[in-house]
Amino acid sequence: MENGIIFVGKKPPMAYVLAVLTYLNSGNDSVVIKARGVTISTAVDVSQIVTRRFSKDIKVSKVEIGTEELEDKEHKKRNVSFISIEMHK
Amino acid sequence: MENGIIFVGKKPPMAYVLAVLTYLNSGNDSVVIKARGVTISTAVDVSQIVTRRFSKDIKVSKVEIGTEELEDKEHKKRNVSFISIEMHK
Repeated sequence: MENGIIFVGKKPPMAYVLAVLTYLNSGNDSVVIKARGVTISTAVDVSQIVTRRFSKDIKVSKVEIGTEELEDKEHKKRNVSFISIEMHK
Repeated sequence: MENGIIFVGKKPPMAYVLAVLTYLNSGNDSVVIKARGVTISTAVDVSQIVTRRFSKDIKVSKVEIGTEELEDKEHKKRNVSFISIEMHK
């Protein structure tokens, strides 16, 4: 985690749900969940599990989508879609 | 397609890119791309391919995420995340 951003990868959604809840219960009012490529759907799941199952006080405040340029191991550039979901209580 | 909504499923992204471009070139100013579960990331890809590779005049105007209740074949209800991406020219 850097600067209130939780990067969603290939762990089960609950791992990120826990990270969100822990961060928001440690004196922080907002957090951003970010994911690239196929993990984008996991990020949406995480936001829904947090707001619907765990806390009615936490809301999604902003959703952004876009493209990032990544460099692979052979220094080739490729474009990857991302989502960033801002949540706050 | 119903009422200007394109449902993104398991076809390659280009199939939906073409559907978006065709719809917006047939006298319509806006279209909504919608996807559930693991196809959510494909929907984001589709929006990015349309806006970045095909037309600088088409923009993403709204992104919504949420949960829908679906009934499976045995009439059991389960929750599925969705994304809906509104695009207009």
